[in-house]
Amino acid sequence: MLPNVEARTLQLGRELFTRIKVKKSKSGGWWNSKLIDMSMKDEALKIQLFRFVDVLPALRDSKQVARHMDEYFNAPGHQFPGIMSWGMSLGASLAGLSSLTASLGAGAVRKSVEEMARTFISGTTPADAIKAVSAFRKKHLAATLDQLGEAVVSEVEAEAYFQKYLALLDAMILEAPLWPADSLIDSDSRGAIPRINLSIKLSSLYSQLDPLDAKGSRNGIAGRLEHLLDRAMAAGAFVNIDMEDYRLKDLTLGIFMEVAGSPKYRAYRHLGIVLQAYLKESLSDLKTLANWAKHRGTPVTVRLVKGAYWDYESIHAQQHGWPIPVFAKKSETDANFEACSLLLLQSYPHLEAAFGSHNVRSIAAALAQSESLKLPKNAIEIQGLYGMADPLKEALAEMGWRMRVYMPFGELLPGMAYLVRRLLENTANESFLRQGFVENVSEEKLLENPAPDVNLSARVSGMAPAVQDISKPAPGPRRFQNEPETAFLTIKERAEFSAALDGVRKQFGRHWPLMIGNKEEKGEAGEIMSLNPSRLSEVVGIVAKASVAQAGRAIEAAKKSFPAWRDLGVKARAEILRKAAAIMRKRKFELCAWEVFEAGKPWREADGDVAEAIDFLEYYALHAERIMAPSVRSQVPGEVNENFYQPRGVAAVISPWNFPLAILTGMASAALVCGNTVIIKPPEPTPIIGALLMNILREAGVPDGVANFLPGSGREVGAHLVTHPDVNLIAFTGSRGVGLWINSEAAQTRAGQQGVKKVICEMGGKNAIIVDEDADLDEAVLGVMQSAFGYAGQKCSACSRAIVVGSAYEPFLRRLQEAVGSIKVAAADDPGCRVPPVIDSHAQKTIQEYIEIGRKEAPLAFSGELGALKAQGSFVAPTIFKDVPPHARIAQEEIFGPVLCVMKAADFSAALHVALDVPFALTGGIFSRSPANIARARAEFRVGNLYINRGTTGAKVDRQPFGGFKMSGIGSKAGGSDYLLQFLEPRTITENTLRRGFAPPVEESGE
Amino acid sequence: MLPNVEARTLQLGRELFTRIKVKKSKSGGWWNSKLIDMSMKDEALKIQLFRFVDVLPALRDSKQVARHMDEYFNAPGHQFPGIMSWGMSLGASLAGLSSLTASLGAGAVRKSVEEMARTFISGTTPADAIKAVSAFRKKHLAATLDQLGEAVVSEVEAEAYFQKYLALLDAMILEAPLWPADSLIDSDSRGAIPRINLSIKLSSLYSQLDPLDAKGSRNGIAGRLEHLLDRAMAAGAFVNIDMEDYRLKDLTLGIFMEVAGSPKYRAYRHLGIVLQAYLKESLSDLKTLANWAKHRGTPVTVRLVKGAYWDYESIHAQQHGWPIPVFAKKSETDANFEACSLLLLQSYPHLEAAFGSHNVRSIAAALAQSESLKLPKNAIEIQGLYGMADPLKEALAEMGWRMRVYMPFGELLPGMAYLVRRLLENTANESFLRQGFVENVSEEKLLENPAPDVNLSARVSGMAPAVQDISKPAPGPRRFQNEPETAFLTIKERAEFSAALDGVRKQFGRHWPLMIGNKEEKGEAGEIMSLNPSRLSEVVGIVAKASVAQAGRAIEAAKKSFPAWRDLGVKARAEILRKAAAIMRKRKFELCAWEVFEAGKPWREADGDVAEAIDFLEYYALHAERIMAPSVRSQVPGEVNENFYQPRGVAAVISPWNFPLAILTGMASAALVCGNTVIIKPPEPTPIIGALLMNILREAGVPDGVANFLPGSGREVGAHLVTHPDVNLIAFTGSRGVGLWINSEAAQTRAGQQGVKKVICEMGGKNAIIVDEDADLDEAVLGVMQSAFGYAGQKCSACSRAIVVGSAYEPFLRRLQEAVGSIKVAAADDPGCRVPPVIDSHAQKTIQEYIEIGRKEAPLAFSGELGALKAQGSFVAPTIFKDVPPHARIAQEEIFGPVLCVMKAADFSAALHVALDVPFALTGGIFSRSPANIARARAEFRVGNLYINRGTTGAKVDRQPFGGFKMSGIGSKAGGSDYLLQFLEPRTITENTLRRGFAPPVEESGE
Repeated sequence: MLPNVEARTLQLGRELFTRIKVKKSKSGGWWNSKLIDMSMKDEALKIQLFRFVDVLPALRDSKQVARHMDEYFNAPGHQFPGIMSWGMSLGASLAGLSSLTASLGAGAVRKSVEEMARTFISGTTPADAIKAVSAFRKKHLAATLDQLGEAVVSEVEAEAYFQKYLALLDAMILEAPLWPADSLIDSDSRGAIPRINLSIKLSSLYSQLDPLDAKGSRNGIAGRLEHLLDRAMAAGAFVNIDMEDYRLKDLTLGIFMEVAGSPKYRAYRHLGIVLQAYLKESLSDLKTLANWAKHRGTPVTVRLVKGAYWDYESIHAQQHGWPIPVFAKKSETDANFEACSLLLLQSYPHLEAAFGSHNVRSIAAALAQSESLKLPKNAIEIQGLYGMADPLKEALAEMGWRMRVYMPFGELLPGMAYLVRRLLENTANESFLRQGFVENVSEEKLLENPAPDVNLSARVSGMAPAVQDISKPAPGPRRFQNEPETAFLTIKERAEFSAALDGVRKQFGRHWPLMIGNKEEKGEAGEIMSLNPSRLSEVVGIVAKASVAQAGRAIEAAKKSFPAWRDLGVKARAEILRKAAAIMRKRKFELCAWEVFEAGKPWREADGDVAEAIDFLEYYALHAERIMAPSVRSQVPGEVNENFYQPRGVAAVISPWNFPLAILTGMASAALVCGNTVIIKPPEPTPIIGALLMNILREAGVPDGVANFLPGSGREVGAHLVTHPDVNLIAFTGSRGVGLWINSEAAQTRAGQQGVKKVICEMGGKNAIIVDEDADLDEAVLGVMQSAFGYAGQKCSACSRAIVVGSAYEPFLRRLQEAVGSIKVAAADDPGCRVPPVIDSHAQKTIQEYIEIGRKEAPLAFSGELGALKAQGSFVAPTIFKDVPPHARIAQEEIFGPVLCVMKAADFSAALHVALDVPFALTGGIFSRSPANIARARAEFRVGNLYINRGTTGAKVDRQPFGGFKMSGIGSKAGGSDYLLQFLEPRTITENTLRRGFAPPVEESGE
Repeated sequence: MLPNVEARTLQLGRELFTRIKVKKSKSGGWWNSKLIDMSMKDEALKIQLFRFVDVLPALRDSKQVARHMDEYFNAPGHQFPGIMSWGMSLGASLAGLSSLTASLGAGAVRKSVEEMARTFISGTTPADAIKAVSAFRKKHLAATLDQLGEAVVSEVEAEAYFQKYLALLDAMILEAPLWPADSLIDSDSRGAIPRINLSIKLSSLYSQLDPLDAKGSRNGIAGRLEHLLDRAMAAGAFVNIDMEDYRLKDLTLGIFMEVAGSPKYRAYRHLGIVLQAYLKESLSDLKTLANWAKHRGTPVTVRLVKGAYWDYESIHAQQHGWPIPVFAKKSETDANFEACSLLLLQSYPHLEAAFGSHNVRSIAAALAQSESLKLPKNAIEIQGLYGMADPLKEALAEMGWRMRVYMPFGELLPGMAYLVRRLLENTANESFLRQGFVENVSEEKLLENPAPDVNLSARVSGMAPAVQDISKPAPGPRRFQNEPETAFLTIKERAEFSAALDGVRKQFGRHWPLMIGNKEEKGEAGEIMSLNPSRLSEVVGIVAKASVAQAGRAIEAAKKSFPAWRDLGVKARAEILRKAAAIMRKRKFELCAWEVFEAGKPWREADGDVAEAIDFLEYYALHAERIMAPSVRSQVPGEVNENFYQPRGVAAVISPWNFPLAILTGMASAALVCGNTVIIKPPEPTPIIGALLMNILREAGVPDGVANFLPGSGREVGAHLVTHPDVNLIAFTGSRGVGLWINSEAAQTRAGQQGVKKVICEMGGKNAIIVDEDADLDEAVLGVMQSAFGYAGQKCSACSRAIVVGSAYEPFLRRLQEAVGSIKVAAADDPGCRVPPVIDSHAQKTIQEYIEIGRKEAPLAFSGELGALKAQGSFVAPTIFKDVPPHARIAQEEIFGPVLCVMKAADFSAALHVALDVPFALTGGIFSRSPANIARARAEFRVGNLYINRGTTGAKVDRQPFGGFKMSGIGSKAGGSDYLLQFLEPRTITENTLRRGFAPPVEESGE
C-alpha cells in the first residue's frame, strides 16, 4: 500500500474515533446490554441464552416460556441462577419456580427479548419500516429495506414473500416522494439516486434454488425476479441482490449477471450485488464482476462486506469434507477487504462502491483509497446495520460521506434468526465492536494495518500473491476421513457428471458375465434384463443369470481360495481395499452414472452412494488392521497370552438394490479384509453395479476365486448359498421377510457343515420423526421431507411417520404439504429431480396397493401429479396421509416408497409412545428445542440410530455406525467399530514361557 | 550386630579374598567361559542359549541338533550369527547352514555342552561320583552326594530313584572305609562324623506329594524314606533332606520333624535339613526347628543356604496371585542369611550349622559370628557346589574350616535342569560370583554389611523387626486381578475346608424352592433329588422342579422388572456384582463344600470353580462400566455422535453342571450387569449350587424379578424358555446336541416376538495335545494327565487325545501309563482324590459304553481299578487307549469322561493334521521345545484356546478368554473383552448442534 494511503487511513481513523467518542452512549435496555455483557464472559451461558432466544418466538404461552427457561438455565450442567431470577420477576426464588409457570415473569422475559430484537429490527410492518426510514433521513442517513422471512420451503411461501416485496414497493412509491430532499443521500457523483432502496435474497423468491440444477434454478426464479425488477425500474427504485451462503454464491452471481446483463435491464443503473470479503474467492469474483460490468456498459453497485456466516461456512464445509471457503483468521478477512476495496474503487465507474462494515480501520482505509484515487466523495457509499454502531454512522454522515442503513423489518419469529446472528457477531471474540466498545482495545491497535508487508496494488493486479489462508490441518496418526460428496458448485463438476451420463448411455445393452474362480461364465439360468426405472423402455444391460450348479461351483472356488487369502495377512488385504477405493474415486462419476440409470438414483444420491462405498473400503481397511493386530499380554510373568481373530471362511454377500454400490461394497469388503472369501449375489434390479464392483475388486488385486460374482434368482441361487454346508457366513441386507428366513435356515445344521453359520442381517424400518411443539419448523419440514421422499422413500432409514406434537401439527402439516408440492418428480438423470421413480414395476404396484389401503385408513393430505411420467417409468407420486391412526397398516408396515403418515400426538410422551409402537427399531428423529425433551428422547427413543434436529437418512461411515434391532436387524452396526468382529472368530494362544524356573521378559502390545 | 563381629567379618573376608586371588584360575573350556561371558552381555542370547541347552539332551541325532540351533540362533528376531559359526565347525557360513545338517558341527556342539555340564556335575555313575569324592578328599574337602533325576511323575519312577540311592549307599559302604583318614573332614567338635553323606529330595521318593493332602503325603513317603534311613543308620551315613520349592517347604519340614522325631530315629545324630534364607518365613522356621531339636534331644544339622529357585518362586506366586514368599531384593536375602546364621549358631548344640554359600561376605559373617559365640572351629561346616568357586573352597580348607562339596551326579538329560539352574545363578546380575569375578566389583563393596543399621541379635530375638520386604505393587488405575486359588499350604486352610465340608454335610436333605419374581415357590412339576456322586446313597438336597406354567410366570416377572433394572445404570449394577463377589469370597469354602458333594469336585477343583465365579463377577463389573460408558465424538463440528449399548431384555441362562458355579455365574452376571433380567435354569445334577447363586444375588441387592430361579427339566422348562417370544437372549453352555437345537429353535420367529433372539452358545470339544519329539516329557506327561483326568475328564477343555510325534511315543506312553497308575481315584471329599466320580449314573453308563466301543477300536493301554468305589458312587476308572486311529469314534466324539486316546504321528505335520481333523475347535495343546514348531502351531493349530507347554484346562478370566468355534460354540469368548457385547444392542445418537449457524464446542469422551 502506498505510504500516503496508510497515513491517511490512520488520520481518518483517528478522526472517526474522536467523533465517535462524543456520540457514544449506552444503548438499549438491560437485557440488551447486561445479558450481552454476561454472555461475553460465560461461553456456556451464551450458548444457552442464544438458543433460548432462538426458540422463544415458537413458544405459545407463558407456561412454555417458564418451562424452557427452567430447562435452559436451571438444568444440571447448565445452572445459571442469575438468569433465572432476572428472567422472573425480581426476587422470585428458584425453589418456587414450578409454581411460577404462568407467572408474569415469563411474559416479562418475552417482552425483554422483543425489546432486544427491536434494537436490531426496524419494525414489524412496511409502515413501521417506512417510518424508520423517514426518521433516519432526518439524521441525513439513507436506508435500504430488507424484508425478514422464514426459510422459504415451498413455492407458496416464495410467492407470499414475493408479494410482500411488491406491497412494500407500492407503499414506498406512495411515501418516498413526500420525504424532504437531502442532497447528501439523494444524489451521487452522477446525479440523483433512488430514495427507494430494497435488499432482496434470491432464496426467498424461489424455494428450489440448487446449484446442481443451475438452469432449473434460473428458470424457476426468473418470473418473480423479473416482475420485481420491472416494478422497481418503473418506480426508479434501487434493487440490491443480497448474498447468502457460499453454496448459493456462484448461482446468485450467475443469475445477477445474466438478468442484469439481459437487454431489458442492461441500461438500468440502480442494481446492486454483494461480495463477502471473508470468502477466499471474493477478489477473483470482483474481477469477474468488473469485467462483466465494463462489458455491460452501465454501472452496477457492489456492496463489499466482510460476511455474516463465518461460523456456518466453516462448520458446513468441514461437515462435508470440503475446502473451507472463508479465511480462517479475522485479520486475513480484513486484509482481503482492503484489497477488494481498492480493486472496487479502481473499477469505478464500471462498478460503484458501497462499503458495509462497522470496522473503523476498514472504512477509513476505503475512504483513504478513494481519496488517493481522486474519486468524488459522493461516488462511494458506506453502509451499516440498523441498531449497530450508530455513533460511527453519524460521524461519517457528519464528515460528509453518504451513509446508508441496512434496515431489516418483519415478524418476530423469522426475525430471531437475524437477531441471533447479530448477537453472535457482537459477542464474537474478534468482533470490532466488542474490542472497541467493550474491551477497550486501544485505538492504535484497532487501526493497525492487517497486512503491513503487502503491496496492495500489486496484490490487486495479481502481481503479488492473494491473501494466504494460514489455517493448517492438525497433524496426527492416520485417521479415517469420510470421502467428500461432490458439491456440484462448479460448472466443471456438472459438465463432467453429464459427460459420464452420456458415456454410460452409450454402453446400454452390453452383456455382463458371471465370475466364478478365475473365469467369466455365461448364465446357465438365462439372462437378467436390467431396465432403467426412469424409462422402462431402456435396457441398461443384460446380465448373466446363474444356475444352482454355478452357485455350487462358486462356493467351491471360494472355499479353495480361502487358505491363501486368509494367510496373506491383513496389511496386504487392507492395501487391496485401499486400491479399490482409489479406483472408485477415479471412476466416481462413471459409477454414479450407472446408478442413475440402473437404480434410478438422482445425481446427489448416486454420488453419496459411491462416496459411502469408498468410505467402507477405507474404514474397514483401517479398522481391520487395528483389530486384527494381535493383542499380546503377560498379565503374570511366565505366561504370554495372545488374543487375535481369524476369518470364518466362505461368505455369501446378499445385498439390496437401494444402495447398490455402498452396501454391497461394505458387506463384501468387510468380509474380504478379514480374510474371508466371498460370493457376491447382487440384487436382481441392480446386477450391473455388482459387476462393476467385481471388476474393481479384481483390478485392485483380489485374487482368483477370492471374490465371485453370482447374479441370479434369490429364491434359487440365494437360497442355495444360505443353506450350503460350505458357506460359513451370510451377510444380508434387505427385507424383514427374507432376513428372517435366512436366519432360520442358516440356523439348521446340515450334513457336512463344519460350524454354526454366522448371519449378519440388516432388515427394514418403520421410522418416525417426532416434531415437537417448539421445533424449528423451517428445519423440521425440510428434514421430514428429505427423509421421507429422498430417493422416493426407498431407504431403510427413511422417515415414514411424522408424529407432530400439539399445536405444531397444523402449521407443520400445511408447510409440509406445500413443500412437497414444490419438489420435482422426474427421471433420475434430470438434475432437477428430487423424487425419482421407484425401482421397478413390481415395487410400484406394491406401493400403489399400500396407497389404496391408506385411502381407507386415513385422509389423504397430499398426492402429487405424475403426468407424462406415468407412462414412461415406474413412478409413484409423493403421497401424504394425515391423522393416521397409530395401528393403521400404513403406519405399521414398511412400504418402501414415497408415502408418509403424519400423525398427531397430544404431548411429547404420547409421541414417543407412538414412535416406538412398531415392530422395527432402525432410525428415528426428533425436531425439538426443548433440552428436557431432547434428553428424554436420547434415553427413551430406543432405535438403532436416533437423529436430533436433522433428518434420519444419510448416515456416514464412522460418524453414524448404522443398524437397528427388534425386527430391523441382527448384529452390529455397519460402518462402526464392532462391525468387523462379526466376520471373525476369536482365538487365544497361551504360552507358558517358564522353563527351568526362568521366564524371559515380554513386550506387550495391543489392547 | 556387635561392632567386633562386623570388624572381624571384614577381616576374615579380606583374608579370604587374598587367598582366593592366589588360587584364581581360568576354569573349563571356551563354551563354558566364553558363552557364559556372552550371555551376560546379551539377555536375548542368554535366553536362547539356556533354552537350547535345556532341549539338547532330548535331541536324538545331529540333524535335530543342527535344526534346533538354526531355530534358536538364526530365526528372525533371534539372529546370533556368532553362535552359529562357533557351534558349527569353524568358518562354516550361514548361507550353507542347511547343508550342514548332519555335520560334525552338531556333534561338536553336543560335546561342548556336555563338557560344560561336566564342570558342574561330578559324573554319570555312582562309581564316577565316588571317584570324585575320593579326589576331593585329597584336597581336604568333604562331599555330599546328590543323585540327579527326572521329575518323578509316577510311583514306578519313585521306586527306581529310591533303588538308585540304595545302590549308591551300598557302593559307598564298600569304598568309604578304604579312604585315608582326614581329621579336618572326618570329625567335628564331638568326634567322628560319617564319611558317607547323602542329600535327598523328598519329591523323588514319592510321586504324589501334595501339601493339600499332608497326611496322605506322609503315608505315601514313609515306606521308602524309612527304609533308606534304616540302611543309612546301619551304615552310619549322614542323610540330608534337601529343600525344594516353597510349595513343599512346610510339608518337607513336617515330614522331617515327624520322622526324625519318631522313637526309631530320635537318637540318630547324622540327619540334616535345609533352610533357604531367601524365604521370608525362614527365620521363623529356624526357631521352630531349634525348639523342636531341643525337645528331640539329639542335634540335627541345618544347612543354611540362600535358595536356588528365586525366579521360579517369584513367578509361580505371581501366577497364582499369592504373596511372593521370597525377598524381592538380594540384599534382603543377604541380611536374612546373617540373621539366620546367628540364630543357627546360637542354637548350638541343638542344631549344628552348615553354611552353603559362595558369597565371601556371608561366609565371613557366619565365621565371625561363630567366633564371637566362642564355638569350636569344627562345630560348623561350610558347603559349596561342585564346579563353582573352587578357590574359595580351597581357601577355607586352608584356613582350617571344614568344607563340604555338594556333588550332583547322574545322566545328562536330568542333569540339564541342574545345569541351567547353575548357569542362571552364575549369570544373574546380582550373582556374587558374577560381580566378584567377572565385573570386578571392589572387595570393599562385596564385603559391605547388607543391613548396617540393624542390631542382628535384637532381630534374631524378635526385639527388632524382621527383614522388611521392600517390594511394592505398582500403582495404577483399577485393574482386574484374578481371585487367587487357595494354596492349601497351611493347616488352618485345610482345617477350615474340612469344617466347611462338615457344615454342609449337616444340611443334607434340605428343601430348595424356586424363585419367581419376589417369592419362593414349590415346584409344580415335583422335586429333583440331588445326589452325591461320590456316595449315591447321600441325598444332598431336594430341589423344587418347575412346571411350564411356572416358567411362563418367571418370564413375565423378568419382563416386568426389565425397565427399572435397565434404567438403574451400569455403575449400580456393577456394584451389585462386586457385592456378590464379596459374599462368595466370604463364603468360599462353604460354596466349595457344596460343589464337592453335589458336583463331585475335588477340593482344588471346587476352589478353582468358586474363584472363577468371583472372577467373572469382578471382570464383567469392570468391563461393563468400561463398554457401557457412552463414546461421545464430534468428528465434524456441529455434530455430536454418541455411541452406546443397551441391554436386550429377558435372558434365559441355561448352564452346565461341570463348572456349576463359575459358568452359571459368568453367564448370569454378564446378562445382569448389562441390564438384562435373567431366568436361571440350573443343570439338573447341580440345582443346589444354582439356588446358592440365586440367594447370593438377592443378598447382593438384585431386585425382585430381575433374577429368577427355575430348576426343572431341560426338555420342558428349558425348551419353553428357548421358544418363548418374550425371551430375548439365550445364554447356553452345554452339549453340542442341545446347543444346535437351541440355535435352530431360537432362529424361528414366533407370534408376538419383538426381535430376533440372540443365542450365546458354548458347546463341546474333542481336544488334542500334541507332544513333539523334543518335548520335555516331565512336563508333557503331567500336563496331559492333568488335562485328561482332572475332574474325571468332565471339562469341555479336557484333553481327550494325545498325539505324540515320532520317537517320543514310546517313552511318553510308558511314563503316562505309570503316572496315571499312580493317581488316586476317590470320593471327592477325600483330599487325596485326583480322579473323582463322574456326575451321575447316566454319565457313567455313557462313558462305559464308549470304553466298550474303544476296546473294539484300539488297544487298551491302561485301565484303573475301582475296587469298593464301584458300588459306592458313579465312578469310572481312568482309561487310556493307544495307537488309536484318527477316525475311530472314541477319537472323534466327545466322551466327557476319564478316557484318553494316545495316537502316534510320524511327524509334526501329521500330528497337526490329526489334531484338527475333528468336528470341534475348542482347546488344543502342544508340548515342544522347537521354536519353529511352536510358531507353526500358533499359526495352524486353529482352536479357540491353544496352550503351549502347559495343560489345556484351567483357563483364567481375562488371561485366557475362553471359547471355540466349529461345533464348539457360537459367539465370543467368555471372560474376554468382547463377551459382554453379545448381551447388548448398539445405539447411536446423532445431534445436529448447529443452530442459527452456530455450534458450541464439544467435550469428547470414550473410544
